[in-house]
Amino acid sequence: MSNHYRGLSPSIQQLIEALQCLPGVGPKSAERMTWQLLQHKTTQAQQLADNLQKALQTVQPCQQCNMLCDDSHCPYCRNPKRDPHVLCVVESPSDVLAFEQTASYQGRYFVLKGALSPIDGLGPTQVGIPKLLTLITEHPITEVVLATNPTVEGEATAHFIAEQLKSRKVILSRLAHGIPMGGHLQYLDGHTLRHAFTERKQLTDIC
Amino acid sequence: MSNHYRGLSPSIQQLIEALQCLPGVGPKSAERMTWQLLQHKTTQAQQLADNLQKALQTVQPCQQCNMLCDDSHCPYCRNPKRDPHVLCVVESPSDVLAFEQTASYQGRYFVLKGALSPIDGLGPTQVGIPKLLTLITEHPITEVVLATNPTVEGEATAHFIAEQLKSRKVILSRLAHGIPMGGHLQYLDGHTLRHAFTERKQLTDIC
Repeated sequence: MSNHYRGLSPSIQQLIEALQCLPGVGPKSAERMTWQLLQHKTTQAQQLADNLQKALQTVQPCQQCNMLCDDSHCPYCRNPKRDPHVLCVVESPSDVLAFEQTASYQGRYFVLKGALSPIDGLGPTQVGIPKLLTLITEHPITEVVLATNPTVEGEATAHFIAEQLKSRKVILSRLAHGIPMGGHLQYLDGHTLRHAFTERKQLTDIC
Repeated sequence: MSNHYRGLSPSIQQLIEALQCLPGVGPKSAERMTWQLLQHKTTQAQQLADNLQKALQTVQPCQQCNMLCDDSHCPYCRNPKRDPHVLCVVESPSDVLAFEQTASYQGRYFVLKGALSPIDGLGPTQVGIPKLLTLITEHPITEVVLATNPTVEGEATAHFIAEQLKSRKVILSRLAHGIPMGGHLQYLDGHTLRHAFTERKQLTDIC
């Protein structure tokens, strides 16, 4: 425990230390949060403690798609209105949320446990590719959207999965690259701009 | 609850909402924290839930000085090695920590509940000035350092307390203004620089 907190009561020190597990929270922010929680926001702090405890007790990966949820199957897998023929493969639960926030995708998901990264000990089994292949075999899936991140690891993962699915009768797709909406060309990296130019659309295709 | 989290399990949604009570944490950071806590850092998350719960149950204001602590009296008031003749009056528990981190002050503290701010309904009673005056009467205090913030409210609070203590035999002091250590003159506000110039020290006084 840091010498910085000399004389401070143990439970306050421990809270300052514990808050530093949050991403982007260092000692100074943790101190500020501690005083706020204990001095002005005790009601919300109690709510936070309760909700965190509850989430830790109930949240588990969906048995079908690995999305974090409260039950054995997540709301997306349980929803009969969602198209069972399209499967979107992502790297993390937060990617599912990103897709849901677009309110335009109505298919199912499969959440990998990250991307392939042999150097970190993450092989096909660790990221859950066998489970994905079983799911595709057992369900009437006609298209698999490989929506892993456009990073070296994400691309490698997508290629690996594509290779495994080569012999099966499923359409494989990958998210389109291009300029982001509302972006400025001058700030775009050359690789993306080159891609956007190569994949340019005829105006008649768009309108 | 926001429409942004449609389909997400309730306990995850509730944790995202609850985390937003932390200062500087908006919806995006709260989402990121939630995934981190539930996916990769469940042990630390459990520790955080436990420590927050414990702190909420045990932390209370010190009966003598208002500093937040685990017992009826804080470690600073209980410590017999600390000088009982000097009292440092600050606006918040975090100011006590700031002083402690200098490792140079050995007197006692008194923590006001903020600074006087009539527009926010914070009068002398609300910020705890009567308790401070009683403490000064009942203890052998010879010097009161009015270490409220150098803001309009902090200055007003210091002046108000000084006025109340005028008739008593205590030395009153206020923290020195001047250029901060390691600062650059060109970035300093004119008011502080003027103060630093007026209060300049002869080299013989320093060495």
